Amino acid sequence: MTHLLEIEAQLAATPALLDAWLRPLPPGWTARNEGDNTWSPFDVVGHLIHGEKADWIPRLRIILEHGERQPFEPFDRFAQFKDAEGKTLGDLLEEFSLLRAQSLASLRRYALTEADLERPGTHPALGRVTVRQLLTTWMVHDLDHVTQIARVLAHQYRDDVGPWRAYLRVISGTQG
Amino acid sequence: MTHLLEIEAQLAATPALLDAWLRPLPPGWTARNEGDNTWSPFDVVGHLIHGEKADWIPRLRIILEHGERQPFEPFDRFAQFKDAEGKTLGDLLEEFSLLRAQSLASLRRYALTEADLERPGTHPALGRVTVRQLLTTWMVHDLDHVTQIARVLAHQYRDDVGPWRAYLRVISGTQG
Repeated sequence: MTHLLEIEAQLAATPALLDAWLRPLPPGWTARNEGDNTWSPFDVVGHLIHGEKADWIPRLRIILEHGERQPFEPFDRFAQFKDAEGKTLGDLLEEFSLLRAQSLASLRRYALTEADLERPGTHPALGRVTVRQLLTTWMVHDLDHVTQIARVLAHQYRDDVGPWRAYLRVISGTQG
Repeated sequence: MTHLLEIEAQLAATPALLDAWLRPLPPGWTARNEGDNTWSPFDVVGHLIHGEKADWIPRLRIILEHGERQPFEPFDRFAQFKDAEGKTLGDLLEEFSLLRAQSLASLRRYALTEADLERPGTHPALGRVTVRQLLTTWMVHDLDHVTQIARVLAHQYRDDVGPWRAYLRVISGTQG
């Protein structure tokens, strides 16, 4: 169960990492995105909150209770724009931290075995997925949005780095 | 000077963000890289430490004291492999936090004006660069390595996400 321990460690660390990172930054910076139909760091934290409410533990519950028979609900990737209205980034960071702690408590109550990790469910678009894939994706999804936040913050400074741009993959877009 | 305030805020936040993120993760995970000649999260923190010692403030000092006449020393991108020998990730995180705080104290002592930000220096490979470009690059370099750490951690789980791989840019390598 090494993998599950690692996954839980990252899931538990994400709220603290985002708080240490984003709370001290000027709000004008964390509200900027990469252009039309892109997300700011503020929007990303809102999206992570919606995942805790509607995605990860609810989908785990569907697999454990119904197996492959009941497909997951499709996930609303735009819910955060309505849900976060009138809130500050500090509000969202606190809400995310609370919801994530509740999700992890739910996960631990299931006390999943190795056999449970191989139990299958049905994703509405991707088809057959397992509990292991769901939990791993939950964690990697955090990491995906960490890279997005870094990229969006860096985007605002893409001109000010001058010739160093060639060395900065977060701006040049190469993954090298 | 909005930009300088934002840059300083990110530079100050990076040690706390890395500490909140990496200290709770199992050491076996943070020691893994992406294959031959790639860096683990442990190596990246070592590289950031070397930057505080040899790169950012020393280069700022060269510009302010000598202008374009004295090119920067080339930066050793592999110093961390020797310097970090026998240390734990916790040791490195503490060292980075201390050195970064000292760097920021040095930066503030310079009390840079808008005019100072346009002063030019000479990069050994890139040629003419300004103080503004140096300071912006210092901050974006942090963000670049944040994305690298996320990518390297995710890399270890590239198979376990199953069909979700298509949605996870940190694994699929697209920047979309």
